[in-house]
Amino acid sequence: MTEILKAKPVVKNLYGQMKAEIEEEKYFPKLVIVLVGNDPAAMYYVQNLEKKGKKVGIEVETKKFSSTVSRAELLEEIYALNENDKVHGIMIQKPLPSNINEYEVNFSINPDKDVDAFHPINLGNLLLGKESFIPCTPAAVIEMIKFYKIDISGKNVVILGRSNIVGKPLANLLLKKSVVGNATVTVCHSRTKNLSEITKNAEILIAAIGRPKFVTSDMIKENAVIIDVGVNQIEDAEKGLIYVGDVDYEACFEKAAAITPVPGGVGSVTTAMLLNNVLAAYKKLKKII
Amino acid sequence: MTEILKAKPVVKNLYGQMKAEIEEEKYFPKLVIVLVGNDPAAMYYVQNLEKKGKKVGIEVETKKFSSTVSRAELLEEIYALNENDKVHGIMIQKPLPSNINEYEVNFSINPDKDVDAFHPINLGNLLLGKESFIPCTPAAVIEMIKFYKIDISGKNVVILGRSNIVGKPLANLLLKKSVVGNATVTVCHSRTKNLSEITKNAEILIAAIGRPKFVTSDMIKENAVIIDVGVNQIEDAEKGLIYVGDVDYEACFEKAAAITPVPGGVGSVTTAMLLNNVLAAYKKLKKII
Repeated sequence: MTEILKAKPVVKNLYGQMKAEIEEEKYFPKLVIVLVGNDPAAMYYVQNLEKKGKKVGIEVETKKFSSTVSRAELLEEIYALNENDKVHGIMIQKPLPSNINEYEVNFSINPDKDVDAFHPINLGNLLLGKESFIPCTPAAVIEMIKFYKIDISGKNVVILGRSNIVGKPLANLLLKKSVVGNATVTVCHSRTKNLSEITKNAEILIAAIGRPKFVTSDMIKENAVIIDVGVNQIEDAEKGLIYVGDVDYEACFEKAAAITPVPGGVGSVTTAMLLNNVLAAYKKLKKII
Repeated sequence: MTEILKAKPVVKNLYGQMKAEIEEEKYFPKLVIVLVGNDPAAMYYVQNLEKKGKKVGIEVETKKFSSTVSRAELLEEIYALNENDKVHGIMIQKPLPSNINEYEVNFSINPDKDVDAFHPINLGNLLLGKESFIPCTPAAVIEMIKFYKIDISGKNVVILGRSNIVGKPLANLLLKKSVVGNATVTVCHSRTKNLSEITKNAEILIAAIGRPKFVTSDMIKENAVIIDVGVNQIEDAEKGLIYVGDVDYEACFEKAAAITPVPGGVGSVTTAMLLNNVLAAYKKLKKII
């Protein structure tokens, strides 16, 4: 029987822990989201964060800026948030207007409040295996692996995709000498030759390339664990607009030992990981841990 | 015919370029090495750097400290060097006494003078694929690949070893979308199962584990390119103390398409890469590039 690695119990567990800790310890963690423009997906994500934050006791405030905001104005806001000791996490909702340099904005955030973990200091610490914030999607993958007790030590883990926010940080994390770590990690991407020969050797396959249903049944190993990071919107003839992953779920289901669904898989855990980072930031700033 | 990937022409080319540029442009780059204690290997390395620096026109000054130096004294020295605008590169020679926290020392260096590239900001930028200093050994490997025009794009590159100074930064670099990049990268280590099955698939095998002659002929693919980062001192029955790599050179020679010797391979290029970082630091600090 193929095991379905659902987000629901993972998230329930995480929110339960966070809520209990925040209530018992009388914490007041606060996240400020900087939202520029009115991208519908971004606005939906932000509203969801506000809702989930409320549920666990993390205050989430959204500072909205018009898409014509200047670089200086945005940086000034970030500097003020860096200094504000009532604010423990700062998140810059992407996408940003094209005239704003994303790297510069990420770099301007106080690394101790950088709950998205896009600041090079946090990514450098991640590479070094030091305690640091972990970007939400890699953190969600790790959390799934931990929750479902998937043994990755010494296993062949293949990551499809080499992005700065998923593939590369995840590769560094899975190599780490730790309980969820010690994997043999291969990173594949658009330039990889003989891709399916490599994916067919994967005991754990993690897809993060943003191509709907790219991974087909003939590309996976019998009894592999399939972790699908992709969330792609496609037009379905019957159902209209639907979300699918990077993996052809129906086609791969039988062959896999375990598989994450989309929606209701990795993507649904990322919000919890972001809020978890806010709580960690709060404790670090208050020197509680 | 197996090609021997010697350091000599690579280094000659690098020093030639550096020397010409420094002379023509009337640059005065300066490296300060902080040397604690009197480890013979460290002292030998430092003397070699001084000699090579002189050759190309980079001033190399060594500040010596007794092995009883305090943390505060060492950090004070580093802060002074950070501020000193006559100094463009700072290198803390390892090993440090056990009471000194290596991470803290690396972190205290001005990232713009961090020619060893051990500061998390530089490693974070490396992960992000941004322009940054690159640690000398990974930089030497890249330089070898570039000089000998080894095509790694889309190829199966297997790295043996997941250290913070070689394996992990190198993996991130070889994945990069760049001329020397776009490789499919697998990182193996002590926990890897079925190691030789993986190494036998490597079109390019990079060994960086510090175990003398670990890689044997049956572990490599016919016509693979073998890059040996290891430098291990062993006792030879006839020759006494000798240096050997992580690869059994004699045994693998015939089967490989190309192979780096030890000594006279990657290790000999690292010093040049360090001095090259000093020159780059000089130009960045002087806003020349």
